[in-house]
Amino acid sequence: MPDTDVSARPIGVFDSGVGGLTVLRALRTRLARERFVYLGDTARLPYGTKSADTVVRYALQAADRLVGCGVKALVVACNTASSVALPAMSRRFAGLPVIGVVEPGAQAAVAVSASGRIAVIGTEATVRQGAYQHAIVARRPDAQVLAVACQLFVALAEEGWTEGPIAQAAAQRYLAPLFAGRDGRDEPPPADTLVLGCTHFPMLGAVIRAVVGAQVAIVDSAETTARATETLLRERALLASGSVSPAGAALRLLATDAGARFAAVGARFLGRSIAVTEVELIDL
Amino acid sequence: MPDTDVSARPIGVFDSGVGGLTVLRALRTRLARERFVYLGDTARLPYGTKSADTVVRYALQAADRLVGCGVKALVVACNTASSVALPAMSRRFAGLPVIGVVEPGAQAAVAVSASGRIAVIGTEATVRQGAYQHAIVARRPDAQVLAVACQLFVALAEEGWTEGPIAQAAAQRYLAPLFAGRDGRDEPPPADTLVLGCTHFPMLGAVIRAVVGAQVAIVDSAETTARATETLLRERALLASGSVSPAGAALRLLATDAGARFAAVGARFLGRSIAVTEVELIDL
Repeated sequence: MPDTDVSARPIGVFDSGVGGLTVLRALRTRLARERFVYLGDTARLPYGTKSADTVVRYALQAADRLVGCGVKALVVACNTASSVALPAMSRRFAGLPVIGVVEPGAQAAVAVSASGRIAVIGTEATVRQGAYQHAIVARRPDAQVLAVACQLFVALAEEGWTEGPIAQAAAQRYLAPLFAGRDGRDEPPPADTLVLGCTHFPMLGAVIRAVVGAQVAIVDSAETTARATETLLRERALLASGSVSPAGAALRLLATDAGARFAAVGARFLGRSIAVTEVELIDL
Repeated sequence: MPDTDVSARPIGVFDSGVGGLTVLRALRTRLARERFVYLGDTARLPYGTKSADTVVRYALQAADRLVGCGVKALVVACNTASSVALPAMSRRFAGLPVIGVVEPGAQAAVAVSASGRIAVIGTEATVRQGAYQHAIVARRPDAQVLAVACQLFVALAEEGWTEGPIAQAAAQRYLAPLFAGRDGRDEPPPADTLVLGCTHFPMLGAVIRAVVGAQVAIVDSAETTARATETLLRERALLASGSVSPAGAALRLLATDAGARFAAVGARFLGRSIAVTEVELIDL
């Protein structure tokens, strides 16, 4: 039964670095029966400052490697690669499900926003490229999208300073202006939905929630991407049908550079410790 | 008189991004008669995560371009390139003065430290490479060097959040452990000297000083590099002898990517506004 064979294959997850491990974590929570191969192109990050041609070339190299590992689907956990390289990847691997982070996040934001006023936070590059803005307006032309770069959140997440006074003050400084006037005023709130448009930002979920308040819907693109992956695999009858994989065997970690840093920083993003020996260094 | 001709040429300053503009600023303050060409390899930053071979290749390409602009000396304002590529650059351009940021900083730290207990802060890559540590111990074998990566300082400097509660709290968190026990205790201070081993960190000089206290000597590698450049140019009779250059004509800015970001972030580092049209986009 070839169908059974394919559904037993691992899911490939690709990112420019360790940020995509938050997407992998959401995928593993939602799809506990699946095996995964994660590839972080740590030697060549960041993608956000590179030309579109270069990002497409790098993303195809990473996808080639993951397809060579026999994956049944590709999750592009990198915002830049999702914005720029998804069509090229779908063309190259016709028939293989390819899921990016931008479309699921935009879709969820439009579904959940009552007012159509949607705030998007991301890296400078993501905000400048405007992929979330375009994807949201394509689904709801009257949406008002306010996009703000929160560059310090990346450094805070990588440093592991995701709670406490520094993270709180940074969240306050970036986000309070977006959601000011929410309480005790007559005018409508500036935004009722906040999209976390960077793989690092779910790490700061608690301090972000504390600033924006309970009424604002927070769209975590890691979680929405995991949901979109599950839906697509179910539609194509590709969900693994076996028993829950043992944690060790269920995951391979590939990186193009700096296994020690990948292990140290990645552990926080993945939510479990990573042994340096577990990270396979590869060339692309 | 060929000597006169050479001394009238500009000084080339090279960095992987905008951080080196703090070095350029110190150079312009100290050497007001000089003209400068600054090259920021913004398309390919960061260098700190790349292999030594690649950093040498990139640094030589940048140096070729600056030598093509007719510079009389090369200042390597990038910590990684200073650590890795200085010998290759000196070989390639025999006779041309080449000054890095690491040696002047290490030299100043050893000269100023009474106890030999010296703290060095830098990026993760700089701390891991250990160039400051080696350069200090080479000059003073009994020195005790404590190196700490202060990654968030880079993001704070680029965001322009160089004062206020967030910068203060970050400085406190990174630096207080290094200088704890300084006041009101009998034991000697853990370090009497702090080297700012990253071009971004002079931007945070005030909050750093507030945490470490007035007794600790702070070695700003931008300032020490400017002084070393002046000394070397004087020794070789290459100091410009003309009148002070008008500010506009005295500086050319070259970048390999993102002129708008270079102008916006760079203005804070250089200490004067930069017009986007002033940044010449180049390929290396």
